[in-house]
Amino acid sequence: MVSFDDVVSLMKRRGFVFPGSDLYGGLANTYDYGPAGVELLRNIKNLWWNEFVTKRPDMVGIDASLISHHKIWEASGHVGGFADAMVDCKNCKTRMRADHLIEDFSHKNVEGFTTDQLDEIIRTDKVPCPKCGKVGMWTAVRKFNLLFPVQLGIVEGDQSQAYLRGETAQGMFINFKNVMDSTRVKLPFGIAQLGKSFRNEITLGNSVFRTIEFEQGEIEYFMRPPKTDEEWLVPYQEWKNAMWDFVTNKLGITQENLRWRVHSDEERSFYSKRTEDLEYNFPFGGFKELWGLAYRTDYDLSQHIKFSGKDLTVMDPQTGQRFTPHVIEPAVGISRLFLMILCDCYRVDNEKKRIVLALPKHLAPYKAAVFPLLANKEELVHKAKEVFTLLSQNMHVAWDDRGNIGKRYLSQDEIGTPACVTIDFQTLEDNSVTVRDRDTAHQKRVTIDELKGILL
Amino acid sequence: MVSFDDVVSLMKRRGFVFPGSDLYGGLANTYDYGPAGVELLRNIKNLWWNEFVTKRPDMVGIDASLISHHKIWEASGHVGGFADAMVDCKNCKTRMRADHLIEDFSHKNVEGFTTDQLDEIIRTDKVPCPKCGKVGMWTAVRKFNLLFPVQLGIVEGDQSQAYLRGETAQGMFINFKNVMDSTRVKLPFGIAQLGKSFRNEITLGNSVFRTIEFEQGEIEYFMRPPKTDEEWLVPYQEWKNAMWDFVTNKLGITQENLRWRVHSDEERSFYSKRTEDLEYNFPFGGFKELWGLAYRTDYDLSQHIKFSGKDLTVMDPQTGQRFTPHVIEPAVGISRLFLMILCDCYRVDNEKKRIVLALPKHLAPYKAAVFPLLANKEELVHKAKEVFTLLSQNMHVAWDDRGNIGKRYLSQDEIGTPACVTIDFQTLEDNSVTVRDRDTAHQKRVTIDELKGILL
Repeated sequence: MVSFDDVVSLMKRRGFVFPGSDLYGGLANTYDYGPAGVELLRNIKNLWWNEFVTKRPDMVGIDASLISHHKIWEASGHVGGFADAMVDCKNCKTRMRADHLIEDFSHKNVEGFTTDQLDEIIRTDKVPCPKCGKVGMWTAVRKFNLLFPVQLGIVEGDQSQAYLRGETAQGMFINFKNVMDSTRVKLPFGIAQLGKSFRNEITLGNSVFRTIEFEQGEIEYFMRPPKTDEEWLVPYQEWKNAMWDFVTNKLGITQENLRWRVHSDEERSFYSKRTEDLEYNFPFGGFKELWGLAYRTDYDLSQHIKFSGKDLTVMDPQTGQRFTPHVIEPAVGISRLFLMILCDCYRVDNEKKRIVLALPKHLAPYKAAVFPLLANKEELVHKAKEVFTLLSQNMHVAWDDRGNIGKRYLSQDEIGTPACVTIDFQTLEDNSVTVRDRDTAHQKRVTIDELKGILL
Repeated sequence: MVSFDDVVSLMKRRGFVFPGSDLYGGLANTYDYGPAGVELLRNIKNLWWNEFVTKRPDMVGIDASLISHHKIWEASGHVGGFADAMVDCKNCKTRMRADHLIEDFSHKNVEGFTTDQLDEIIRTDKVPCPKCGKVGMWTAVRKFNLLFPVQLGIVEGDQSQAYLRGETAQGMFINFKNVMDSTRVKLPFGIAQLGKSFRNEITLGNSVFRTIEFEQGEIEYFMRPPKTDEEWLVPYQEWKNAMWDFVTNKLGITQENLRWRVHSDEERSFYSKRTEDLEYNFPFGGFKELWGLAYRTDYDLSQHIKFSGKDLTVMDPQTGQRFTPHVIEPAVGISRLFLMILCDCYRVDNEKKRIVLALPKHLAPYKAAVFPLLANKEELVHKAKEVFTLLSQNMHVAWDDRGNIGKRYLSQDEIGTPACVTIDFQTLEDNSVTVRDRDTAHQKRVTIDELKGILL
């Protein structure tokens, strides 16, 4: 398995991810996507949208406001219950997440455990404070809310408290009726959204795995209330297959690094009939959640009916009876897909002493790089610019006219560019160029006319 | 000119834009993009990225964190000076933006005016309070900061204050060195970013024209310090041409509705040598800023050098001397492009009693719609699904099997779908379908094999 430190080092060195606010010493758990990273991120998001919205007759998208009404988060339960369980060491005043404390010391998975259960484990396992080493000095486990409040308006006494959204999912629920009223959808159908969510979390610092601001890709798939288990199990399994297909076939991830994990009864939300996670074997800490799939019944819409007093039910055109739709929710962390891909594609080529990011071509930030052999020969630069312009019509092309060709290859290998095209003096004579393959490092000579056919 | 109310009504009716947090009575100045809106928005953003990043050898992109370090905004001047000038009516306690007050009453453009100048106009023009009608009861004009503070961390006494970014531009400046170090760029080159910014503003409520959360597309184009005016005027004019080309040719906007306006000396920031706005003639209030172009000298990087203590200078490879790059900044409001396009493409077809959104095909949310003539005939639905799947490989296709065909045409006209394809009983016999054109409402019969050629 690759070293995670090596992956993180490449991410910074080659412009995939920089620490957020880096120039000012960084801002904990925030990150900026650099030139290579933003392209990979865009490719993942566009692929997700294309598969789950564009290609399907039963899906539409939305893009809801990040700042949203406090009542949405009261209805969703986030204001009351969306919290990290924390403990303080009475000796040295260190405050920690109780689950991280237990995971690190006892190696137990405690997701979904109550504060009482966490207290119990800390006591029986005699978990020491990792800072001062004392045992038995922990306070009781207490919950701290993860939502970021935002004050709107500038008139004192007339400000309203809103929240940065804690998940994209609520955007679909609160717009369910707007979507039904403004489009031609009929049940079953889904609403998809790509966008940022925010959680005021304490994290373990594994790059973009868990951050206070993160990119989600969520789908709420609405359907008639099922009369039998069969009726929800069929679409549930279809979504499960679609998720697996996306990660293995579309993103090209090694199957051995993936697994499904069904949530236990304690871990699952009380309203969910079944929840499971597609997990990836990250090079830090092993298998971790990538993509959750949950059958959430009619819980979410029912909550919003209760809190808003509005009617979100749908009429059965046959019987005239009204019902509240049920939902299946596939929810993925786009930033986690991003991190998974970088980990899965990282290759060390000991023979040629190089690192190669073996990205599938359709995910690579650049499909090709174009180099004039020498930057100070105007004919070469001019010809290379022509090739760049030609290829740019159909694909994203990198340009590099700095330093020697070896260094240029090295940098393109590390950002995963599948092919490098060099324009040299022979090009000026016979219109031929060298094309060098990322994975084999083999070079061949082809004409400019053949390039698109080879590279696309 | 179209009625803005009609445009806003279509935006809600057809799922372009809904009021934010609508289910809970709305949250002032926030909006959610619906199924048609998110597709138009995506098309604009992808086109912008393709033109200004993908196709150019001298541009790279980034995607920086929305939550960012307070020092960034101190260096940029936003913490000190980024503020709305407000006045209070001492009689009825109404608080208003001073510029809006003057614009509405005196019809004067006061952008860039100082608080003293605003005080002066309110006094000499005898501007009354629009609520209680009293004259001469205004307080002095005072400034209120527009940045949204965010508290990070949950440990009391150990929280740090960050800000939701007030513009995307600072992300480029603070990452200038990271980009130089991690990529193969050399001067002149630009960094582009698409993303949300936030301003705690009082707005006049013209839909997504000015909102507290809005989508920006900004470019910082870095270059050597110019020795002559010519040296910055040439790239400046190139960017001006690129902006004009994008709006007129790529977005297809009517040229008569566009104009350039150069900022006056009072209006322009003290460090800027020249600033001008590309304006669109919106159906509310006339010409308003769409896209700003500013030559900002080395102000931004110099400020960050001062505040961070880091070296952001670049070495001249010839002379070995170090210099601070200058920048030209083309900054566009993506949400304003969105609103402009809807206003510019809104057509009333009195003859056929319909509304048509005459979007250029590449901007339309759907390139075609596919209808089975009857939803309860399984052979028709099956065949129509085949056509949908065939077309979906190359374009975004809408599906509609509800109600009568006339209503389906009506809805596709209003979201701007260029063509509607109907599968009827004849299709089952000879594989032919009707294609109905949005703009002419003419229908013709073609075979399924011919469809892609016609629609693409």
